[in-house]
Amino acid sequence: MQFDLSARFILSADAEAGKADIEAYFQEVNAGFLARNAAGDGGAVTQVRVAGKEVAIEMETTGRARGHDQLLRLRKGLAERVGKKHKLGVRDIAIDAYEVTFELERPCKTPFTIPFAKALRFDGTLATMELEDLSDEFLQANSIDRMMNLVREKVEHQYYEGKGEMHHQLYASPRRDPAWTKDPSEVMLEREWLKQGPTKGKWFFRAQAAHVMRTMERIAIEEVLKPLGFEEVILPHHVALDTWIRTGHAHGVPNEIYYVVEPKTRDIAAWDRYRDIMKITRKVPEDELMANVAAPVAGICYAQCENVYWSLQQKTVADASLPIRVFDATAISNRYESGGRHGIERVDEFHRIEPVYVGTREQLIDLRSKLLARYQHVFNEVLELEWRIASVTPFYMSHSGMGDVASAEGEKRKEKTLDDAPDTGTLDFEAWLPYRGSRDESEWLEFQNLSIVGKKYTDAFNIKGQKADLWSGCSGIGLERWTVAFLAQKGLDAEGWPKAFRDRIGEMPAGIQFL
Amino acid sequence: MQFDLSARFILSADAEAGKADIEAYFQEVNAGFLARNAAGDGGAVTQVRVAGKEVAIEMETTGRARGHDQLLRLRKGLAERVGKKHKLGVRDIAIDAYEVTFELERPCKTPFTIPFAKALRFDGTLATMELEDLSDEFLQANSIDRMMNLVREKVEHQYYEGKGEMHHQLYASPRRDPAWTKDPSEVMLEREWLKQGPTKGKWFFRAQAAHVMRTMERIAIEEVLKPLGFEEVILPHHVALDTWIRTGHAHGVPNEIYYVVEPKTRDIAAWDRYRDIMKITRKVPEDELMANVAAPVAGICYAQCENVYWSLQQKTVADASLPIRVFDATAISNRYESGGRHGIERVDEFHRIEPVYVGTREQLIDLRSKLLARYQHVFNEVLELEWRIASVTPFYMSHSGMGDVASAEGEKRKEKTLDDAPDTGTLDFEAWLPYRGSRDESEWLEFQNLSIVGKKYTDAFNIKGQKADLWSGCSGIGLERWTVAFLAQKGLDAEGWPKAFRDRIGEMPAGIQFL
Repeated sequence: MQFDLSARFILSADAEAGKADIEAYFQEVNAGFLARNAAGDGGAVTQVRVAGKEVAIEMETTGRARGHDQLLRLRKGLAERVGKKHKLGVRDIAIDAYEVTFELERPCKTPFTIPFAKALRFDGTLATMELEDLSDEFLQANSIDRMMNLVREKVEHQYYEGKGEMHHQLYASPRRDPAWTKDPSEVMLEREWLKQGPTKGKWFFRAQAAHVMRTMERIAIEEVLKPLGFEEVILPHHVALDTWIRTGHAHGVPNEIYYVVEPKTRDIAAWDRYRDIMKITRKVPEDELMANVAAPVAGICYAQCENVYWSLQQKTVADASLPIRVFDATAISNRYESGGRHGIERVDEFHRIEPVYVGTREQLIDLRSKLLARYQHVFNEVLELEWRIASVTPFYMSHSGMGDVASAEGEKRKEKTLDDAPDTGTLDFEAWLPYRGSRDESEWLEFQNLSIVGKKYTDAFNIKGQKADLWSGCSGIGLERWTVAFLAQKGLDAEGWPKAFRDRIGEMPAGIQFL
Repeated sequence: MQFDLSARFILSADAEAGKADIEAYFQEVNAGFLARNAAGDGGAVTQVRVAGKEVAIEMETTGRARGHDQLLRLRKGLAERVGKKHKLGVRDIAIDAYEVTFELERPCKTPFTIPFAKALRFDGTLATMELEDLSDEFLQANSIDRMMNLVREKVEHQYYEGKGEMHHQLYASPRRDPAWTKDPSEVMLEREWLKQGPTKGKWFFRAQAAHVMRTMERIAIEEVLKPLGFEEVILPHHVALDTWIRTGHAHGVPNEIYYVVEPKTRDIAAWDRYRDIMKITRKVPEDELMANVAAPVAGICYAQCENVYWSLQQKTVADASLPIRVFDATAISNRYESGGRHGIERVDEFHRIEPVYVGTREQLIDLRSKLLARYQHVFNEVLELEWRIASVTPFYMSHSGMGDVASAEGEKRKEKTLDDAPDTGTLDFEAWLPYRGSRDESEWLEFQNLSIVGKKYTDAFNIKGQKADLWSGCSGIGLERWTVAFLAQKGLDAEGWPKAFRDRIGEMPAGIQFL
């Protein structure tokens, strides 16, 4: 890596009196901490100009001696040298120009730019970033290192784009004969069990559909979670953007979030004009509304586990409480979807139970086995579904060593079982939807998942055990998806449903009769 | 009322050829439908000028002959007169000036203006509104009548401002000795049963608090709603602004709504710059975010019943399904609060069960008695609360004949019972919070209400019965409020709780132990 930097130190008064000391200081650091070591880390301040209140320098460094880090070190040293003796303070740093050249893993395929960079040049596996007019704050906030990471990430992304994911089946249930091949959402609409919601991708579940969903919820809680010691919590259903910066959702999926905006003020007088216009026109005056609300600081629950991690941040958990097993069944999830919406299985608003677990690696792997056993019980013996479990790894993740069951090409053909599940990664539970086509050719529905994410979130939120490092994971139980998987295979008529499910759902509600 | 109007009809071609017919037409209407009747409704077109493609008129009318209505009638008549004979069409109307004078119930105390009015003058109980440059669309949308209503409403409001509400106690429970006088939210915070949420006025309920809340929910469902035949539905938790225009919340409480904004596009490429800046700075770039989201079309559930009414709009309900009895326990309510927040009893996010009922007047009054009996059972025999029921009528409503139990001054001193509850109106359930002070001097907590609103919402959403007019009502069951009322009187230690409640709550969860 190579760093060429032009900067100025702004002093508290004219520097002339301290000029000799200032020049001597830079000569000393050139021979001192800046001097290049055997590994090639280091460099020199190549020019110093003292003029008025300013000390302007040029600095060239290489290797691990990053120009922006060295500059902060110089600031401190310079302040010490001229502080007492000449009563001069260093008030500020101005970076006029900064050029950073660094290595990439692979050459850039298509050039691009990033914010805050004046220019970005690529030459084989070298990237050169030109910067100008940087503030002290920008420097201190570690932003330049993040700019380099962003360039590397974007180049790597060029290699994985569109590669999709690797899919390994680890379990398949017995085959089941479907009761019908209709789309359950459509028939529920006809029978008034359901109504499309007033806004995009949301549904109104009338009593019949609600009763099926609630029964699914009760089965999950009573037959999976409670027997394994999970305790219910109730999450706030707003997630702060700050929390999503830590989990990565803020920049990962900003285009799928429903943001929440608050009134700028609760003082009703400020809303007078808005209210008057609406009373006259019976329409929402958009401009008035936008002028009266503040920029979003939060969004509606996306992944449901975020606020569980947030609630544990900076905490040290007693060994006796490990593994932590909690679940939330209250926060409603929203995802902004576009073309892919269909029925109640692909929606903008959905209802989930989200069990979250935090513990040692061994505890979580053990808990996963127990969860898998309970889920198998429910799907095989209560719902009698035709379903399967697959280990799914995005292509880029499999290359970073995360959660791929088949690292070698030859292994792919070997039969896999649940014992082959990698320590970290996601298991997808998929159900056949007969209305989409044959079991062999149609796309199955992911109706459930189960993940262990290693230290990703315990690190991000600084959640600690008494001794051991903590891992975490979660398992999203989609109630709409359970419902669709079940109804698509078993139909809407209660007489055709498996006895174990009929025992649990009891009487179906009458609903409302319309004319 | 008096209406003075200057307007132009814009024709499809030069009007010269039809001039004589045009002038004759206005003479005829002056003697015809415009002619003033015995009640004083009517007036005349006092000037007609035909020039180029335009026919300009002046019209003065009084009484029920509203200028803007008459103008639309003239447009139609004129088009008929010149259409066939002269092949002239009326393309548009332009209203250049319009002055409307109308009666108020009482004189205006402090002058004001409203949107779209050039000027608004008051003279005793007369208001005069000057308008100019009105579009045809504005006219057709009935906006001018709404402007008059708005002026009347604002004047009336000047008389009731700050008058508060009338409060009549209809029931008082037996007295109970409180177990303690502490603020339960504070002690729950100390014991880690609770944690303040990541954004304003929201809470994270850890296992212990969540278990108490869920028990309250179960008691309400099993001991109040199910025995009375209520069926659960699941609502979308976004409410369209259009729905709130019908219920009145859009202009009634715009300053208390949490609005929801959607991404302008799901295309991730449009979000590149936003994501890059966040990856570099680890902060949300507000301007970029605002540029990427659309204006709100919805907000988060405020009153919970809105979407139930929406789901029934334009429906005719079979007699066999009356009274409709549904409840939602899923949609999470948000209200933007400011200074008044305290503990879990006054928050921005709260969890409610909302039973909604629709039926004939008799059915609803009967259902209310049954609900009151079930609530009394729960609060007296399960929770053993000290509580009361009051009929609460905002001052302005009591004057419009809505829901006041004591219309005559002398009646106010008479002892009231639940049998005195008015047909429509709200009953508030209030519980003593010993931490606030003595039962006689402190402010009690409204932890529950029960309303019958008459035809307000069945009219707004056009919900019909086979024969009878339908009324509706609802009863918000605030789970945080039930929880606070109970814990504030009974303390946090399960041993001190009433046996009937202990039987229902079972074992308290262990929660997580932190170091």
